[in-house]
Amino acid sequence: MSSKSMTVIPFIAAHGYPHTQAWIAALQLALPDEHIVAFDELTEEARAACQVAIVANPDPADLKQLPQLVWIHSVWAGVERLVADLGNTDLKIVRLVDPQLASTMAEAVLAWTLYLHREIPAYARQQAQKLWQARDYVRPEERTISLLGLGALGEAAANRLLQSGFKVCGWSRKPKTIANIECFTGEHGLPAMLAKTDILVCLLPLTTDTKGLINAQMLAGLPTGASLINFARGAIVNAADLHVVLDNGHLAHAVLDVFETEPLPVADWQWQHPQVSVLPHCAAPTDRTTASRIVAENIRRYRDTGELPQTVDVARGY
Amino acid sequence: MSSKSMTVIPFIAAHGYPHTQAWIAALQLALPDEHIVAFDELTEEARAACQVAIVANPDPADLKQLPQLVWIHSVWAGVERLVADLGNTDLKIVRLVDPQLASTMAEAVLAWTLYLHREIPAYARQQAQKLWQARDYVRPEERTISLLGLGALGEAAANRLLQSGFKVCGWSRKPKTIANIECFTGEHGLPAMLAKTDILVCLLPLTTDTKGLINAQMLAGLPTGASLINFARGAIVNAADLHVVLDNGHLAHAVLDVFETEPLPVADWQWQHPQVSVLPHCAAPTDRTTASRIVAENIRRYRDTGELPQTVDVARGY
Repeated sequence: MSSKSMTVIPFIAAHGYPHTQAWIAALQLALPDEHIVAFDELTEEARAACQVAIVANPDPADLKQLPQLVWIHSVWAGVERLVADLGNTDLKIVRLVDPQLASTMAEAVLAWTLYLHREIPAYARQQAQKLWQARDYVRPEERTISLLGLGALGEAAANRLLQSGFKVCGWSRKPKTIANIECFTGEHGLPAMLAKTDILVCLLPLTTDTKGLINAQMLAGLPTGASLINFARGAIVNAADLHVVLDNGHLAHAVLDVFETEPLPVADWQWQHPQVSVLPHCAAPTDRTTASRIVAENIRRYRDTGELPQTVDVARGY
Repeated sequence: MSSKSMTVIPFIAAHGYPHTQAWIAALQLALPDEHIVAFDELTEEARAACQVAIVANPDPADLKQLPQLVWIHSVWAGVERLVADLGNTDLKIVRLVDPQLASTMAEAVLAWTLYLHREIPAYARQQAQKLWQARDYVRPEERTISLLGLGALGEAAANRLLQSGFKVCGWSRKPKTIANIECFTGEHGLPAMLAKTDILVCLLPLTTDTKGLINAQMLAGLPTGASLINFARGAIVNAADLHVVLDNGHLAHAVLDVFETEPLPVADWQWQHPQVSVLPHCAAPTDRTTASRIVAENIRRYRDTGELPQTVDVARGY
């Protein structure tokens, strides 16, 4: 393959991104036959010939300076910004699909589901009041946890929840069948699932279809006392609508790792709402080591065969 | 068997215990061939002939009014009060060994281990400060959770922790071998285990050997930044010593479900210590339905064969 001779690959991150050198080191270790360099360090010659780049929220203007660029490999799983910036170009986008990420996300879903299942927020309030009062124990078989999104992350989370004895439902754009999980699909499937949900876990990609999906109407479809976990993207939840159902007692608690604006602005109501747990986008951090190995394998296959890994469907958005 | 004719079994609880009628109903359902009655409702004749009683922290004076009593079946797993009250008599004590209890306890251990593992207390403090800062993620393979006690509860908890990818150690009075768990024994084994422990989980029975076991010396043997979960009995932990290591930063957090005095007195420091989660003895509530079935099976076997289930070793204390 002619591409065999191309051994310089740029790592292109957002300007000011603090972990560029750490990523370059990890990627270089995983790709000893390539030369990984920061975008600024590309020679004119390398810039002109570069066919593939590894990216972390790159400035699209940087990518335009690479005339031969065929595809980019994101080190993140969520690529909605890349799709918005590059969806109308020929550039192919590959997003990270890392089983380690799915495992870490499944752990986060389990940890916070158990946090809600075992009523840890209610016991913390009781402690603040010095109130000694055991609450009725609910067995996991009596709780239904519903996942929005049944991709790699959703399926891994569902299986972890099943292991812990919960009833698990899942909703996806396309019909799916997963053992021991009640699967729902489409606009009609959503209300049916919500009506039986105790804890709703959002793992959807952010697309034009999912933006603002969790709004007043959808939240009203949950039983009173249900809770929400959002580990996907902030813009999927209408925060003003969420505020209303927390305040009026319809929803018990929300665990939010993602927000429309990040970092969450200091003045935002979510910081100090007693029924909101705010997390700083930490549910499933990318593991640089395992992610670098996956990126490396995809790039080696491309070098050897010219084949790209599965690329993002820009119409769909992920 | 002559015992076949004996169909009245008293349920004897602490005076003022609020759930006597609920227990009698559940036990009656599980034992349709027996007549379950409250202690106060025993006829003189039944009192004189009664060989077995079902108990929940009974007043020992009540038991002394049953001259033919051979054994008592506790509906609780912890029987240290019965052993203290009755250990020097011939009365045999049977404690509840319920797989459902072990499963509920294992869930509690997993829930609060994940609470500490995912740094939920630290993120709650950051939220109170409106501080947006992801903390370094530690994979479960890099955390060692150590169990004090490897009975039915400890082994169930250990296996749940293994499922979630943690390194698991366990310590027991007698040497044990459990697959994939590093087992320690005796006085010499304890410091070796503590030195590698990130989260120490106490599931020991309260005995003369374990009273005050978790003291200053033992806590000093944990690495700095370790945490403690006590789901066993309050008196196993020296609370004053625990206070010192929380305040001086040696221990990060303590999750305490049990206390030397319960309910925990309002003036107790533990209620308002920011590094203590106080729970009202709710980690593993007895399930009346499953517990009644187990008690029923043990009593039926006794009626049919005259054989008692495994009884408590009063010298050992459990």
